[in-house]
Amino acid sequence: MSETAVNKPFIDVLAGQRQSVPPIWMMRQAGRYLPEYREVRAKAGGFLDLCFNPELAAEVTLQPIRRFGFDAAIIFSDILVIPHALGRSVRFEVGEGPRLDPLDTPDKIATLSGQADLSKLEAVFEALRRVRGELPPSTALIGFCGAPWTVATYMVAGQGTPDQAPARLLAYRHPQAFSKIIDALVDSSIAYLLKQLDAGADALQIFDTWAGVLSPREFARWSVAPTKRIVEGVRKARPDAKIIGFPRGAGALLPGFVAETGIDAVSIDWTAEPGLVRERVQSKVAVQGNLDPLALITGGAALDQAVDDVLASYSSGRHIFNLGHGILPETPIAHVEQMLARVRAFKG
Amino acid sequence: MSETAVNKPFIDVLAGQRQSVPPIWMMRQAGRYLPEYREVRAKAGGFLDLCFNPELAAEVTLQPIRRFGFDAAIIFSDILVIPHALGRSVRFEVGEGPRLDPLDTPDKIATLSGQADLSKLEAVFEALRRVRGELPPSTALIGFCGAPWTVATYMVAGQGTPDQAPARLLAYRHPQAFSKIIDALVDSSIAYLLKQLDAGADALQIFDTWAGVLSPREFARWSVAPTKRIVEGVRKARPDAKIIGFPRGAGALLPGFVAETGIDAVSIDWTAEPGLVRERVQSKVAVQGNLDPLALITGGAALDQAVDDVLASYSSGRHIFNLGHGILPETPIAHVEQMLARVRAFKG
Repeated sequence: MSETAVNKPFIDVLAGQRQSVPPIWMMRQAGRYLPEYREVRAKAGGFLDLCFNPELAAEVTLQPIRRFGFDAAIIFSDILVIPHALGRSVRFEVGEGPRLDPLDTPDKIATLSGQADLSKLEAVFEALRRVRGELPPSTALIGFCGAPWTVATYMVAGQGTPDQAPARLLAYRHPQAFSKIIDALVDSSIAYLLKQLDAGADALQIFDTWAGVLSPREFARWSVAPTKRIVEGVRKARPDAKIIGFPRGAGALLPGFVAETGIDAVSIDWTAEPGLVRERVQSKVAVQGNLDPLALITGGAALDQAVDDVLASYSSGRHIFNLGHGILPETPIAHVEQMLARVRAFKG
Repeated sequence: MSETAVNKPFIDVLAGQRQSVPPIWMMRQAGRYLPEYREVRAKAGGFLDLCFNPELAAEVTLQPIRRFGFDAAIIFSDILVIPHALGRSVRFEVGEGPRLDPLDTPDKIATLSGQADLSKLEAVFEALRRVRGELPPSTALIGFCGAPWTVATYMVAGQGTPDQAPARLLAYRHPQAFSKIIDALVDSSIAYLLKQLDAGADALQIFDTWAGVLSPREFARWSVAPTKRIVEGVRKARPDAKIIGFPRGAGALLPGFVAETGIDAVSIDWTAEPGLVRERVQSKVAVQGNLDPLALITGGAALDQAVDDVLASYSSGRHIFNLGHGILPETPIAHVEQMLARVRAFKG
């Protein structure tokens, strides 16, 4: 039986077929809550060294699949590899998160190259090929990028910021200059995602972690429109590409995001309102999510309740079980097993 | 002409009458963006010393009314005066925000008094009486408290936290213990708000700054239900009390919040979706908001556009113009004047 003949439940949901047991994976599933990840991480050197080591990146990508049998693997990488490919300096300081040289004035932005050198990301594509070769045939492989808005918040501020104020202010003050950053990210992301498909990704996710801080007008301009351009750009070359959007915190702006961008599925955070999502989102695309990562840390009856709430809210339609955001490092592995058993025992 | 015969446009909107020019005030309008505030602040000592000095608290409350002629004054105080009245130590460290002794275990919570000593807040009531005596008769006076959920996030963590994780985890792990904090805050807030009405407040606002981090089940339990109890408790003694809710970041959970709590108006942040708010919120209560404070910092054409968006979105119904969150210290006064002129020139 050839690999292509084997069913991938995760892809089937994206393609329109509800599964009676929702496929499941976790954002940041290759991560610090796993001792086997911490072991590889310790010998890899810096965080970007791990991202750019195909052997080790493939290894940590596969770890949660081996341990939990999730329905999808997501390639181990970071959303800031695109600024790196655009020639920006990207460093990860221990305990401090990412650091870049801030692009916080129109003059500095004028120096930004619009052309990413994707040969700098060859290690990511090689890691994808390695994972592809080792994954069980029923397990999907997800490639990803950061949405232009979210990546731009780091490029403008030079680091993570609690309220993304530097990027928001720059976008208000100098929308043309800010557009130049967004345009460079749109073009690079299309090329990057296509190469991930070529390297074996079955589906793609676009992470817009900071979409929720924007007013409706700014959301339309900086989150919806660039995402739509990426979806269209990828589909132009690969009309069958399956793409998941994740405009975290979009709240009531979610239905418009889904309708405008043309994505196949939307990942939702744990604050979403189930009625609105079912009626105006899940009626059109698949829904992925949305367990509160803190419920997963808590475990016990609170976790069972939270898992049941997610299943009751979304598993009557096309649903991929996931968290509402990445799993946190302090999460006990036993709680992941508890969640997994409960989801897989679901009779939908 | 007696004061009671003078029209207060702000109160008229809360009572059900749309105004062709929406009344306007700004959250945190008595604040550091004003030189006259900074002058008083410098001589008051610490932040709580200013809150508890009736003369100076009244003075800074009145400053933005004198300068801008806003339609409402909000008493200068802080949401953490309730923990103070509950006997908790509350300190404001310069440049670091509030510090409390964390109530982060059931054992510690068992020591919490359920009885607030409101005589500790006599300065707030005296400040309200002073402001009441000096306000123009057409200007409304707003009293306020923090919502129990938001105040509890500080009491549990002992400080502000980026994601309110300590309180969220405690609420998952020990809901009964956490309820004890919430219950103490509900009871104290009812008594505190009633005394603010007695001291001359025309309306009340309940600030739930961190409502937006909760899942639907937790939102119903920790934001909606306690707010509803406060509204009912206040109305039991004062059936005519006008109450504004502000569940910041509630997104698509907003219509349910409004329907359940019985508030007269809801303050919305700048990320709200106008269609949902008009159809399912403004059809039932007045709407207050929701200019992005960063648009106010920006000024110029971006500010005009943002003001026009707010007016176009909400001023066909009952609307109080405001920001989506507090004004930021770096905001130029000229931009406040620009906003005010544009709103007052609105022909609705």
